[in-house]
Amino acid sequence: MKALVYHGANKKAWEEKPKPVILQPTDAIVKITKTTICGTDLHILKGDVPEVTDGRILGHEGVGIIEAVGAAVTAFKKGDHVLISCISSCGKCEYCKKGMYSHCENGGWILGHLIDGTQAEYVRIPFADNSLYPIPAGSDEEALVMLSDILPTGFECGVLNGQVKPGDTVAIVGSGPIGLAALLTAQFYSPAEIIMIDLDDNRLAVSRTFGATQTINSAKENAVERVKALTGRKGVDVAIEAVGIPATFLLCQSLVVPGGHIANIGVHGKSVELHLETLWAQNITITTRLVDTVTTPMLLKTVQSKKLNSLQLITHRFKLSDIIQAYDTFSHADREKALKVILNNE
Amino acid sequence: MKALVYHGANKKAWEEKPKPVILQPTDAIVKITKTTICGTDLHILKGDVPEVTDGRILGHEGVGIIEAVGAAVTAFKKGDHVLISCISSCGKCEYCKKGMYSHCENGGWILGHLIDGTQAEYVRIPFADNSLYPIPAGSDEEALVMLSDILPTGFECGVLNGQVKPGDTVAIVGSGPIGLAALLTAQFYSPAEIIMIDLDDNRLAVSRTFGATQTINSAKENAVERVKALTGRKGVDVAIEAVGIPATFLLCQSLVVPGGHIANIGVHGKSVELHLETLWAQNITITTRLVDTVTTPMLLKTVQSKKLNSLQLITHRFKLSDIIQAYDTFSHADREKALKVILNNE
Amino acid sequence: MKALVYHGANKKAWEEKPKPVILQPTDAIVKITKTTICGTDLHILKGDVPEVTDGRILGHEGVGIIEAVGAAVTAFKKGDHVLISCISSCGKCEYCKKGMYSHCENGGWILGHLIDGTQAEYVRIPFADNSLYPIPAGSDEEALVMLSDILPTGFECGVLNGQVKPGDTVAIVGSGPIGLAALLTAQFYSPAEIIMIDLDDNRLAVSRTFGATQTINSAKENAVERVKALTGRKGVDVAIEAVGIPATFLLCQSLVVPGGHIANIGVHGKSVELHLETLWAQNITITTRLVDTVTTPMLLKTVQSKKLNSLQLITHRFKLSDIIQAYDTFSHADREKALKVILNNE
Amino acid sequence: MKALVYHGANKKAWEEKPKPVILQPTDAIVKITKTTICGTDLHILKGDVPEVTDGRILGHEGVGIIEAVGAAVTAFKKGDHVLISCISSCGKCEYCKKGMYSHCENGGWILGHLIDGTQAEYVRIPFADNSLYPIPAGSDEEALVMLSDILPTGFECGVLNGQVKPGDTVAIVGSGPIGLAALLTAQFYSPAEIIMIDLDDNRLAVSRTFGATQTINSAKENAVERVKALTGRKGVDVAIEAVGIPATFLLCQSLVVPGGHIANIGVHGKSVELHLETLWAQNITITTRLVDTVTTPMLLKTVQSKKLNSLQLITHRFKLSDIIQAYDTFSHADREKALKVILNNE
Repeated sequence: MKALVYHGANKKAWEEKPKPVILQPTDAIVKITKTTICGTDLHILKGDVPEVTDGRILGHEGVGIIEAVGAAVTAFKKGDHVLISCISSCGKCEYCKKGMYSHCENGGWILGHLIDGTQAEYVRIPFADNSLYPIPAGSDEEALVMLSDILPTGFECGVLNGQVKPGDTVAIVGSGPIGLAALLTAQFYSPAEIIMIDLDDNRLAVSRTFGATQTINSAKENAVERVKALTGRKGVDVAIEAVGIPATFLLCQSLVVPGGHIANIGVHGKSVELHLETLWAQNITITTRLVDTVTTPMLLKTVQSKKLNSLQLITHRFKLSDIIQAYDTFSHADREKALKVILNNE
Repeated sequence: MKALVYHGANKKAWEEKPKPVILQPTDAIVKITKTTICGTDLHILKGDVPEVTDGRILGHEGVGIIEAVGAAVTAFKKGDHVLISCISSCGKCEYCKKGMYSHCENGGWILGHLIDGTQAEYVRIPFADNSLYPIPAGSDEEALVMLSDILPTGFECGVLNGQVKPGDTVAIVGSGPIGLAALLTAQFYSPAEIIMIDLDDNRLAVSRTFGATQTINSAKENAVERVKALTGRKGVDVAIEAVGIPATFLLCQSLVVPGGHIANIGVHGKSVELHLETLWAQNITITTRLVDTVTTPMLLKTVQSKKLNSLQLITHRFKLSDIIQAYDTFSHADREKALKVILNNE
Repeated sequence: MKALVYHGANKKAWEEKPKPVILQPTDAIVKITKTTICGTDLHILKGDVPEVTDGRILGHEGVGIIEAVGAAVTAFKKGDHVLISCISSCGKCEYCKKGMYSHCENGGWILGHLIDGTQAEYVRIPFADNSLYPIPAGSDEEALVMLSDILPTGFECGVLNGQVKPGDTVAIVGSGPIGLAALLTAQFYSPAEIIMIDLDDNRLAVSRTFGATQTINSAKENAVERVKALTGRKGVDVAIEAVGIPATFLLCQSLVVPGGHIANIGVHGKSVELHLETLWAQNITITTRLVDTVTTPMLLKTVQSKKLNSLQLITHRFKLSDIIQAYDTFSHADREKALKVILNNE
Repeated sequence: MKALVYHGANKKAWEEKPKPVILQPTDAIVKITKTTICGTDLHILKGDVPEVTDGRILGHEGVGIIEAVGAAVTAFKKGDHVLISCISSCGKCEYCKKGMYSHCENGGWILGHLIDGTQAEYVRIPFADNSLYPIPAGSDEEALVMLSDILPTGFECGVLNGQVKPGDTVAIVGSGPIGLAALLTAQFYSPAEIIMIDLDDNRLAVSRTFGATQTINSAKENAVERVKALTGRKGVDVAIEAVGIPATFLLCQSLVVPGGHIANIGVHGKSVELHLETLWAQNITITTRLVDTVTTPMLLKTVQSKKLNSLQLITHRFKLSDIIQAYDTFSHADREKALKVILNNE
């Protein structure tokens, strides 16, 4: 089969690889029908994730059709259409039993990381009963690709951890795909205001069409001052960090009211300064989280019932065999006005 | 009347001041029968709290007897024995309605700070109906002085915010009075292990008598390594910071398991480094809080029912008129093996 | 002034009464500008609420303008536009401190019940700082009359107690004004399906325009069977009882899935049968509640931000002096297709 | 092997049965070392549970040693000492993912009910990785037999669902083994008072030694009046029903304060009257639950750390081969002053 293979920093190829086979009775082999590219894949390609080694097939998102299942798989059979979770969970370790699949002792984020991933014609999915979700007949499968990673990430790490409530004022710092996923899913809880903050006017314009009530280009104006002005000098109930650099985490600290929440989504490469000399007395809560995908069933229901239009996140479509070109587009997201790209293997 | 008066950095005096009078219909005047000294009072005396100005009577803890009430006070009358909360709450602002009395728009921590305090023969208590608690007949009133500040602080900021659960492993960094208050109240929730970490062997020995299951002198051994060894290399479910300096907050970051809680109690004077480059993926929760004293009624019940022996925190007793000597003892806590001191005005 | 006065079962009159005066320092006198009639007022008029005695002015909803305040009132002054809560809360008793204003030891539901109410030109509001809410400039005050009682009732007793979540399937039994208030506010949490069940086709048609995804006329079809058919034989996550008779509470017991919630809003006049012989093992939660109006600030924000269109509940408008005619319309709600009526005193 | 076999109402025998074998890759065969008898077993023997058919081996509690595991079992191997949960959970269905193992679509309470149980020399345990727990070396295994069913039942259905908090007043109606399990585990949360109510003076005396602060023999005194007298006429915060008949559930309704919780543990055979005509306005929460055993890991930690002494529940010990005699003792619990009996197969 063909697959997108990592060959060390800045080297990748669409090349022939052996088709995966069942290794454990809990495995399934899935024929990929649609997959996508994640910002994390770009990080890997830069060489930032040393656990990813030469020869690894990338990708941790997608939908497909069951090709084969191991002897202990009971929830799926050949021919079933499935949504692949970016997190593999064994369902039986201490963390899985707590719903913290991200820290599964036998899985976690391993696809396209520690084992071969989904940017390929076929993929082996460990713990298939716990790591795949059945796709209801008649679903728009393209929409569901957004449920492999980006929407549960925005929702769990940003919205749930931030405890967004009806009537709240929310700020989301960063309006890339993850920030937009938080924006879409924050609206499940009917906050009064959602203020998007970014440096890119195009993405801020997109944010408005996605439901942001206010946007701030922090390159052009003082974000703290604008937020204070918009909130009667108070600040926001929830600040969601969706970038992953010290400046944006610092900004969140300046935005939040006493009693408020800072929910980190961003993948950080260095430590940040935490202003405990003021925050110690502010009754705030700061959370971090690697997505657990424990809300995937809930999100499936919101897509089915049209409370969530995940198609909005998709800006470009390619054939899977054109994945090199798709990477080029996605890695120049600003220039291309790209959010998420879909790769079709059909 | 006599009172302990602040006269600028490092200057205090036990001197004559006018007896307070009712200023608002919601005020009460309380004759102090017992009060105490807080670590915060020492900070003020060093000049670290610039809002405290020359002439201010210090103190925000104590019990006493109602001397007079304003026209709108309905819950108390002359002669009632009352517990004074360190937090004055109006009961009607947005924050009070949320139970966040610490940020009361009309009160908060004002006693011995922005208005005259309790280290005096009499004190004026604003919003008396919401800021005083009736003392049940037959109570040990000395025990209840510990409920003005230190026990709700350890309980709310450390134990409740840290979400201590049965079977948990808890580390408390700092075994001064506040850390010990967290230690006593953590036991309400039956954690399996409570590990106290401090530099002072005497306080660690005290911790053992208060219920700590393990103690670590971090001057003598590597606390991170000891905690890892004690927890099967995992770490603790809850780390409570009860010192207020960068080193102890950093230590907490190294102790906590994925999914764990860091509950800050310490009053910090400078910013700290937050290791988001590792913690971003660890599903942790960090909380800060200025005590709300919203749990005072609950704590009163635990003292009444002997689930909490707050007397253990008291090591020294003085006449109120000997308060200068009491300050000397309390400010040399290590040398004097002092925890909390009681000042009697009877 | 003129007021609607109860004179024993089935007797009421719009007649002259003395204008109320400040009795306590925490009182305010409010000039009513808009009020409404509640189903509870009809119950009182039938003689069902014996605590209401001859001579009582009815009504517990409305908006108005502050005419005078007592000496201890600090949040309001003459001329302020205010929303009146149906629940008077002292803000200082044990229940108020827990946010359970409905059981305030000094207040609770007393307006138009134990003290004179709002169907009058003026009303005395006890504990004004805690029982009134400021109306932001530029608000549609008619919309806010719905926040005195009906919307917090549907929201707190039905939606919050039922713990409606994104993706849930919700059944609301009863599509009168209270059931419709639950329907409107359930949508704050983006459930996948909201099934309204009633006997009145007009109200079911209204429900559809308010956001119901399915409606069932239980006089014409088997509601349990229809719900099973709509939910893949499972049932609903949340069943909200908004009628107050045994049959509808029994229906809720038949609709709910294992792990589900039954949230009672209805005012019941007799006991009901609870099928513990099956429900004991179904992991369900049943809640009851007299509205606390603790969510009024949250609801105000949702109205201001247009997440909630409370005007939809208003079908008829009258002059306050035409209140006898308004009662006639409201008490023939089916015939008149009436939901809530507004009485204007302007 | 030998096993206790059900042969229709009132007929049981200790007789030879085939040794169980692995049927699914997720199965384990466990050699029983210790088991016990549950009140439910007595119900089955009376013929009250029609799904239990002639030939079924009874029993759903016990500890043992792994004899064999299926190909997909990864957490256990031959020779491991294990605790058997009364609930078999697949770990992958919708309910298991929510932690509601009691409603597992592939398991639930099936041992000694729908498949052969633990009152035998060997038992087949389905979904072994999710339904067994490793016993730490050095444990008192007898103490752990109490964790198969009775302690998680008292804790989850009574204490957790009842939301017992520090300082609370709790009433437990029924001081049989389940009520005593609730009594022991309620103390994890440091309530101020635990009032036990029963008809049997011996069990009430036992309750006192287990930590009850008050006991009421409801055959000899008016339980409602006594509780009112003990609680300043208020009632209890939490009422736990641990009998399973209408009278005791009715009693709970009379005991609870506004805002309180009624947590049902009892297995009910008929419907009960629910006094919604008063309770509708009392802001109460009623819960039901079949034990999920989701707290077994937590309970194991509390036993290991000596926060819970489960041995107290054991009054009698027999050889497994004397199980007929053990049933006689357990079914005359009053006469024999029996709580739980241990059957040893060693």
